[in-house]
Amino acid sequence: MPELRFNPISREWVIIATERAKRPGEFMHVRMNHRAPPAYLNTCPFCAGNEHKTSEERLRVNGDKGAWKIRVVANSYPALSPVGDKKRTGDVLKRLVTGVGVHEVIVESPKHDIPTALLDLKHLEELIQIYRDRFIEAGKDERAEHVIVFKNSGEGAGTTIEHPHTQVIATPIVPVQFRERVQAAMQYYDDTGECLSCAVLRREKDEGSRVIFETERFLTFIPYAALSPFHTWIFPKRHCASFAGITDIEAVDMARHLKTLLSKFHWGLDNPDFNYVIRSSRPHDAANDYCHWYMSVMPRLSKVAGFELGSGIYINSAMPEESAEFLRQARME
Amino acid sequence: MPELRFNPISREWVIIATERAKRPGEFMHVRMNHRAPPAYLNTCPFCAGNEHKTSEERLRVNGDKGAWKIRVVANSYPALSPVGDKKRTGDVLKRLVTGVGVHEVIVESPKHDIPTALLDLKHLEELIQIYRDRFIEAGKDERAEHVIVFKNSGEGAGTTIEHPHTQVIATPIVPVQFRERVQAAMQYYDDTGECLSCAVLRREKDEGSRVIFETERFLTFIPYAALSPFHTWIFPKRHCASFAGITDIEAVDMARHLKTLLSKFHWGLDNPDFNYVIRSSRPHDAANDYCHWYMSVMPRLSKVAGFELGSGIYINSAMPEESAEFLRQARME
Repeated sequence: MPELRFNPISREWVIIATERAKRPGEFMHVRMNHRAPPAYLNTCPFCAGNEHKTSEERLRVNGDKGAWKIRVVANSYPALSPVGDKKRTGDVLKRLVTGVGVHEVIVESPKHDIPTALLDLKHLEELIQIYRDRFIEAGKDERAEHVIVFKNSGEGAGTTIEHPHTQVIATPIVPVQFRERVQAAMQYYDDTGECLSCAVLRREKDEGSRVIFETERFLTFIPYAALSPFHTWIFPKRHCASFAGITDIEAVDMARHLKTLLSKFHWGLDNPDFNYVIRSSRPHDAANDYCHWYMSVMPRLSKVAGFELGSGIYINSAMPEESAEFLRQARME
Repeated sequence: MPELRFNPISREWVIIATERAKRPGEFMHVRMNHRAPPAYLNTCPFCAGNEHKTSEERLRVNGDKGAWKIRVVANSYPALSPVGDKKRTGDVLKRLVTGVGVHEVIVESPKHDIPTALLDLKHLEELIQIYRDRFIEAGKDERAEHVIVFKNSGEGAGTTIEHPHTQVIATPIVPVQFRERVQAAMQYYDDTGECLSCAVLRREKDEGSRVIFETERFLTFIPYAALSPFHTWIFPKRHCASFAGITDIEAVDMARHLKTLLSKFHWGLDNPDFNYVIRSSRPHDAANDYCHWYMSVMPRLSKVAGFELGSGIYINSAMPEESAEFLRQARME
C-alpha cells in the first residue's frame, strides 16, 4: 500500500509509491556516456590558466606555490543584473520588479575533474566558510531581500558548465515559497513555544531509521517525507535561523557531513547528477526563534512529470528508511 | 535588464532573464534521436490488439468497424491503491495518510504513432469530453479530495510509455499548492467582488500581446509571468470553478484550442516533450465564485535547477510577448 507522508517544514505531501518501488541498488545510474572529464579544458572559464575568461574576481583563496584554491567571480550571464535600482511597478494583476540583485559563482577548485565529493576535507571546510562569507556579503546588497546558495552538478541537474562550482543569488523579492514556510514555522512556534525544525530534528534523532550520519553538531538524514529517492537533509543541531550564523567549528563539522554524503552518492550511487541548496533566513534575520537553516541535497534520479507540476505532490518510488539504510552501508571511497 | 514578474493566480515569481534570452526559433529541439515511432508495438499495452495487457477496462469509445477509438483503463502500476480505506495517523511532525485513491489511464487512440496534436478534431472533442467524464467519475470516489487530469508526452516530460495517453489521479488529501491558490483567489474576491482569473483573463484579452488564439468561448495565451519558454494557458471565458462544469459545446471549442496549440508546438517547435494539466476545483465544488478552472501546457525546453528548487522562483529565458508572437505565426501543419 502506498503512503502519503507530509513534511511539516516544507509543507509538501509526498506519495511513497511502494507499488513502483525500486530497491536502492536499482538507482545506480547506468550512464552510457559516463566519461571521465579532463583535468583541464581550454574552453572552460573556471580552469586554472583561463582566469581572464571570467567576469570580475571578488575573492581568491590562495593555495600552494602561488596557485589559487578557490575563486569567487561575478556570473558572466547573471540571472539578475548587478547594476540598477530596485523598482516595483504594475498593479495586483501584473506586478513587476526590476531584475536586479547579486549572482556570483564560487569556483570550487582549479581542477576541472575533481567533483565536490572528492575535494579533501580541509578544502571543503574552507569552501563552506566561503559559502557563509559570500552569503553574508550578498545580503549586504541593499536591494537583496533573500539569498540562496546552491549547486547544480551534472547536466540533469541543470549545469551548463561542468567544472565544479556553486552559485549565490540574492533576489530583490522574498520568494513566496520561503514566506509560506516561515508562516508554518511561526504557527508551530506560537502553538508549542518551540522551533518546528528543532522538534523534527529531535524526532529524527530519536527514531534513527532515517539517519545516515551523526556528529556532535550535525545530523544528516533522509526526511520522513523525502520528495525523491535519496533526497537528504544536512541539519545543524544548534538552533540558528540563518546560515550566516554558522561558526567556523560548525563549518568544519558540516564539511565532514557533506563529504560523507557526497562520497556515498559518488561511490554508492555511481555519481548521480544532483543539486544542493542552503535554505536559510536572510543574513540580517539571524536571531529569530522559529526559522532554522539547513542544506537540502537532491540527487536527480527521477523526473518531475505532469502530476507533480499540477499538484505540487511528489511521487517518490524509494522508501526513505530503505534509502537511509543503503546509504549507511554505502562505501565512501 | 531582467524582470521579475509575479503571477497572481499561481502566486509564483519568475525571473524573465533577458540577458540569457534565446530568440524563439532557438528553442527548436535538435534531437539526434528524433525517430518516428512505429504505428504498432508488440510490447505496448495500449496498442490495438494488446488489450489483454492492460488492467481493468472502465470505458471504451467505439470507432469504425468494431475498432475502438479511446479506452479508459485502470493504471497497472498505480501511484495510489484502488482498494483500501483512507486512514490518517501520526501527529503534526509525521502525518501519514494511506495511499488510496484513483489512478487511471485514458488511451487516446489505438495508434502508437499519432501524437495528440495530430488526432483529428472530432476525436479530440470526444477526448476532452472523456476527460470531463472521468474527472467527474474520479471525484465520486468517497476517498477523493482532489482530482488531477494530466498528460506526460515524451521522456523529458516523465513518460514511461510512448503511446499517447492521459492520466487521472484522485488523491485522498487536498494538495497544499491548490489550497494556497484558493486562498489567494478568495482574498482577491473578498477585496474586489470579482474572480481573480476573470480579471486576469480580461486583462490578457485587452492587452493582446500574449494571446495566441481566441474564439467565442476560450482564450489561449502565454501568461504574463510564464514559468518557462512557451508555457501556455488555455482558459475558458465563462466563469466556472470546476472542469466538471465544461459543456459539450465548450468541449468542442476547447478541442480547437488544444489542437491549435499542440500543432504549433509540433510543427513550429519541432515536437518538444511537454506536459499538460487541468487545474480545477474538485467536481463537487463546481459553483463557487472565486475558483476558475483552466489547462496549463508546459513544453519541457529548459531544466529545473538548484535555484528553482531552493526558492520556488523560476528563471525563464524567453520573453512571453515574443514567444506568443512566434506561436501566432507558427505553422499548424
